[in-house]
Amino acid sequence: MSFTKAAAFAPATVANLGVGFDVLGLALNEPGDIVIAERRDTPGAAVRLIENDGGILPYEAKKNTACVAAESALRLIGAPSGVWLTIQKGLPSASGLGSSAASAVAAAVAVNALFGEPVEREALLPACLDGEAVASGYHPDNVAPALLGGITLATGLTPAQIHRVPVPERLHLALVTPNIAVPTAEARAVLPKLLPLKAMVTQTASVAYLIHTIYSADVAAMGQAMERDGIIEPARAHLMPLLDEARVAAKTNGAHGLVISGAGPSLCAVCDDGDIAAQVAEALRHIYDSTGIGCKAFATRVNEAGARVVATE
Amino acid sequence: MSFTKAAAFAPATVANLGVGFDVLGLALNEPGDIVIAERRDTPGAAVRLIENDGGILPYEAKKNTACVAAESALRLIGAPSGVWLTIQKGLPSASGLGSSAASAVAAAVAVNALFGEPVEREALLPACLDGEAVASGYHPDNVAPALLGGITLATGLTPAQIHRVPVPERLHLALVTPNIAVPTAEARAVLPKLLPLKAMVTQTASVAYLIHTIYSADVAAMGQAMERDGIIEPARAHLMPLLDEARVAAKTNGAHGLVISGAGPSLCAVCDDGDIAAQVAEALRHIYDSTGIGCKAFATRVNEAGARVVATE
Repeated sequence: MSFTKAAAFAPATVANLGVGFDVLGLALNEPGDIVIAERRDTPGAAVRLIENDGGILPYEAKKNTACVAAESALRLIGAPSGVWLTIQKGLPSASGLGSSAASAVAAAVAVNALFGEPVEREALLPACLDGEAVASGYHPDNVAPALLGGITLATGLTPAQIHRVPVPERLHLALVTPNIAVPTAEARAVLPKLLPLKAMVTQTASVAYLIHTIYSADVAAMGQAMERDGIIEPARAHLMPLLDEARVAAKTNGAHGLVISGAGPSLCAVCDDGDIAAQVAEALRHIYDSTGIGCKAFATRVNEAGARVVATE
Repeated sequence: MSFTKAAAFAPATVANLGVGFDVLGLALNEPGDIVIAERRDTPGAAVRLIENDGGILPYEAKKNTACVAAESALRLIGAPSGVWLTIQKGLPSASGLGSSAASAVAAAVAVNALFGEPVEREALLPACLDGEAVASGYHPDNVAPALLGGITLATGLTPAQIHRVPVPERLHLALVTPNIAVPTAEARAVLPKLLPLKAMVTQTASVAYLIHTIYSADVAAMGQAMERDGIIEPARAHLMPLLDEARVAAKTNGAHGLVISGAGPSLCAVCDDGDIAAQVAEALRHIYDSTGIGCKAFATRVNEAGARVVATE
């Protein structure tokens, strides 16, 4: 069975989880991007329309993450025709919530749906990575959870190297995206090139402990473990306005930890209750609104399902 | 209730588990050291006798790991008198099986037993660390599993920073100790002082994956995960004779992975069956015996209980 039109949603994601730089990520229930794929006779993928991006995303096929992912997915499934894409952005770019990954994943999933889902979800990972690579190189830490959902641990770029760890039942999140762009390239440029062996030992202990806390479903310890990053956050903190104030506000309101989401400037606070997460989101909103920076702040949970097909016709 | 004499056993341990350098460790059912503590009127600890050490361990109180741990334990519990120690070595020194940690832990546990166990097992950790420090600095990766048993993850030096992870039910181990000494100081001196960020990312992914495989009770994946150390083993491999040959032999005989135990030269192979572990131990024995190096090789399992009091009178 195949269709003339298919739409897919892919969620925002929080990469790194503090100590899990380039390794761990999780999917959020919302927000997310929707990509609609429609058949066209010409082979390959082309962008028909991009909505709600503030006019900043490229229509040129080779520079558009959704388009490159769609092209790669078309090749992967040996599609008999090409696609037009309509990209409905729900995520702001350069916000640290995996915007480029969400578009790439939604495009690949929409293309697969358009042709009757000839391949399994996991098999779309390489196509999604091709799309993400246009924006920020080959990194699975946003793409994997956007595609597969849950909390993912990436030990490499193949589907067999993406591992799901259990989502603690009481895990609630509060997120804030200040109105300031932090380009991923800049956030990577400030990282140290070389590290002392001792710093590596501390970081491996911390990430091992984080996985232990996740399996133990101990959200309080999980929040503390995520914060034990002695390498990435210290190098990037100066790019994140009001980070210290946000952390204090989050904890004062009951969060167990707060980390930079991906390359920032979004911040993610870990809570063990939905009401607390809502209260923490409000406290974070106040931090940025009261200083004139402005922000979006919201409470949400981990999206266990990942990307999904939302319509076919 | 207190006694005039108490004896405690503390097991050999495998530190590092490959990718968990200075962070992970596990206790073995055997071999181990026994320390007998007897009351004496003079305060403090002194060594009466050391058995089976080949004459190499120091009798001087400040240089003997068991004696320093006993002194520290006496202070910790506020003991009313001192102790004489008899140390029965079951472990060879400088073998990578936590020899100094086993003596320190057995001494602390014996002292606590002698005075009627005034403190909990966990509370003895600082005393054990004081003893171990005489031999190789403050490292909990041997001391923690020797004291507490099981597989331990250390995020610091306090009892609250030692975390037990579950022992996979099917985990069996094969060990070999070649007849060659690798002093811990030398094995540390060859390590790189600085590492590329990328190497740190790979190592954190590997150790996170190892904890995931342990919680998944997937012994095959656990063996593979342990071997993914791209930093420590490459730097130390030249100190370990026949490492490559031993790894091939272990895997040919059914092991899922083989790593250097602690600072070596002992090697530890991960198996999922007792018969296979026995066969792997024989294959490892053959490697070293046939080349004239000689060795001890044996199959064993994880010691879940850790150190134990073996006699009081």
